Amino acid sequence: MSLHPPLLNPCALFQRSSSKQPKTTMAFSLTLFNPRHLSFPKTPTFSIPKHPTQRTQTLRCLPSSSFDLQTYWSDLITLIDAELAAAIPLRYPEPIYAAMRHAVLAAPGAKRAAPVMCVASCELFLAPRAAALPTACALEMAHAASLVHNDIPYIDDDPRRRGRPSTHSAFGTDLAILAGDALFPLGFRHIIHRTPPELVPPERLLRVVSEIARSVGAGGMALGQFLNLEERAAPPGEELVVLIQEKKFGEMAECSAACGGVIGGADDGEIEMLRRYGRAVGVLYQVVDDILMQGNGSANARDNASYVKVFGVERAMEIAEGLRKTAKEALRGFEKYGEERVAPLYSFVDYAVERRFEVGASASDANVVI
Amino acid sequence: MSLHPPLLNPCALFQRSSSKQPKTTMAFSLTLFNPRHLSFPKTPTFSIPKHPTQRTQTLRCLPSSSFDLQTYWSDLITLIDAELAAAIPLRYPEPIYAAMRHAVLAAPGAKRAAPVMCVASCELFLAPRAAALPTACALEMAHAASLVHNDIPYIDDDPRRRGRPSTHSAFGTDLAILAGDALFPLGFRHIIHRTPPELVPPERLLRVVSEIARSVGAGGMALGQFLNLEERAAPPGEELVVLIQEKKFGEMAECSAACGGVIGGADDGEIEMLRRYGRAVGVLYQVVDDILMQGNGSANARDNASYVKVFGVERAMEIAEGLRKTAKEALRGFEKYGEERVAPLYSFVDYAVERRFEVGASASDANVVI
Repeated sequence: MSLHPPLLNPCALFQRSSSKQPKTTMAFSLTLFNPRHLSFPKTPTFSIPKHPTQRTQTLRCLPSSSFDLQTYWSDLITLIDAELAAAIPLRYPEPIYAAMRHAVLAAPGAKRAAPVMCVASCELFLAPRAAALPTACALEMAHAASLVHNDIPYIDDDPRRRGRPSTHSAFGTDLAILAGDALFPLGFRHIIHRTPPELVPPERLLRVVSEIARSVGAGGMALGQFLNLEERAAPPGEELVVLIQEKKFGEMAECSAACGGVIGGADDGEIEMLRRYGRAVGVLYQVVDDILMQGNGSANARDNASYVKVFGVERAMEIAEGLRKTAKEALRGFEKYGEERVAPLYSFVDYAVERRFEVGASASDANVVI
Repeated sequence: MSLHPPLLNPCALFQRSSSKQPKTTMAFSLTLFNPRHLSFPKTPTFSIPKHPTQRTQTLRCLPSSSFDLQTYWSDLITLIDAELAAAIPLRYPEPIYAAMRHAVLAAPGAKRAAPVMCVASCELFLAPRAAALPTACALEMAHAASLVHNDIPYIDDDPRRRGRPSTHSAFGTDLAILAGDALFPLGFRHIIHRTPPELVPPERLLRVVSEIARSVGAGGMALGQFLNLEERAAPPGEELVVLIQEKKFGEMAECSAACGGVIGGADDGEIEMLRRYGRAVGVLYQVVDDILMQGNGSANARDNASYVKVFGVERAMEIAEGLRKTAKEALRGFEKYGEERVAPLYSFVDYAVERRFEVGASASDANVVI
């Protein structure tokens, strides 16, 4: 894993905007996620606070000052990578397993954001890490499978992924399809057979399987891919961009946070809050990526569904701030558990904007996927 | 549903062979399923008995004479078709759901062999039909999803399926990939959300999810598709043909019988017997299809992995008789439950060979898939 300083300081971008606008909290609301009710303020009304004290006032809660996200994250990546490598051995039929391993394991320093969020959400409820790890790994397999199919010529036709040849580029489209088809069910089996039964009752595992199945299905990530196909025909409007980004990037993060909560024993209300939190963080990460790529000139000209391309940089920054606020507000109900327990989840929100350190992807791969 | 007399009487084919050979039981054993241990008798040593009394002597058990397979099967098809239609509504995103519906619902009179076998295996243990129906429908979804991906240009490149345009022919390859990706998880969700919890405890549902995930994964149907790709390069040997047919046709039937047993409360030994039974019946059906297609001139010239092409008609018939025997022997342990309860499963075996009536597929579609 490489831990580099960020390529570009996103705060500089945000500050450029903030100098023109009064510092207020932002009106971008949860209705973001229902495009039919989408409404934006006529003029930008936000800023990213420059100092921690300001942020405390605005967002009412900070991650524990003693919490070290970088160590927490990289420790988890080590565990997750080891479990994934063991779960996908190079066995018969080798070509399918080799393609599966390429999809899941080949990118050095992948962020493993979905499984890390799952574990952090589970640990919020003091459940042992071992309870969540199999589900966390299944989330990564489902995510990778979705990306493998997304990249093939008939869908996104993308020869590269995470700075390396995409699976069909390395193994052929036929094997890429089969590898994706095999990764999805392997994830479900991994949950069922590797979760210690003394830690997680079967009802929770069923709920987790259902959550993941929902998030990859026709109303989730498959919908995001479908909408991406649609927007190739005609540049998308604002509502469509919001929906595409939500499905392509919010869905897996929402699912990850919700699954962690389910495994940890969260009640229904808490799972809903985790769902809202995850969705906001997932989209936030992508909006900030769009802004960063615009700033460093690495934006993909083919990508019509970029927030920056459709909304412009300033409104994209408003949206980012709104998502940051939404994510943190969703965590308020968990503050009763103490600062230390909720600190990882708070830290992910700030990390999505600030990128204070580099987790995972190589410096040449700006368009990393959370 | 169309219920036609069979296009061709397979017994006529078998009898052609039997007239040349002494009537003995057959040496084709369970080791069929481990190609490394595959051994065939040097000379054909079997026949298909011509009369029920002969069959009784040979196979020691007959389906109940009062059991009406045709009515049993068509009643179940009605229930299964209705549940599948409700489970895959034409809702947003319509193009994906339309492609899913095409894959699962479009073929008039599809046999629904996998779900019917699942229900019959469950009913063997006196569990109510409602307990098995959601799993039965999920099996059909998984099967259809596998066929959709199997047919696309990069895999089998087959423009037709069940006498109709295959899904990618009707909706495009992009939507076919997404429809397959959406059908697999929809099946899992259908099991979890539609199985009455008062009828099936969660541990059994987890086992069923795991069974289906195994059967579609890298060691199951995906492996069958991969081997099919391999055999295009060079005509396959006997072991490879056996393995391809087992994975492409035995796997889903094995899974269906095992899932029915799990839902119904079978013990581990009984599930193993159901597994062996289902695998034998699934391959048997395909071997007989190969023989029938050879007989009526509809064999697919591209299909190198046909039993008839590799083994010849006579040995294919030996194999069929061996599979019939294996399937029936696997049911012996269930005779203690009474003739009536085990009759449907026995009847499927004879149906696979004799095709006494036409279930489902149109008369123009000889290469139906079980």
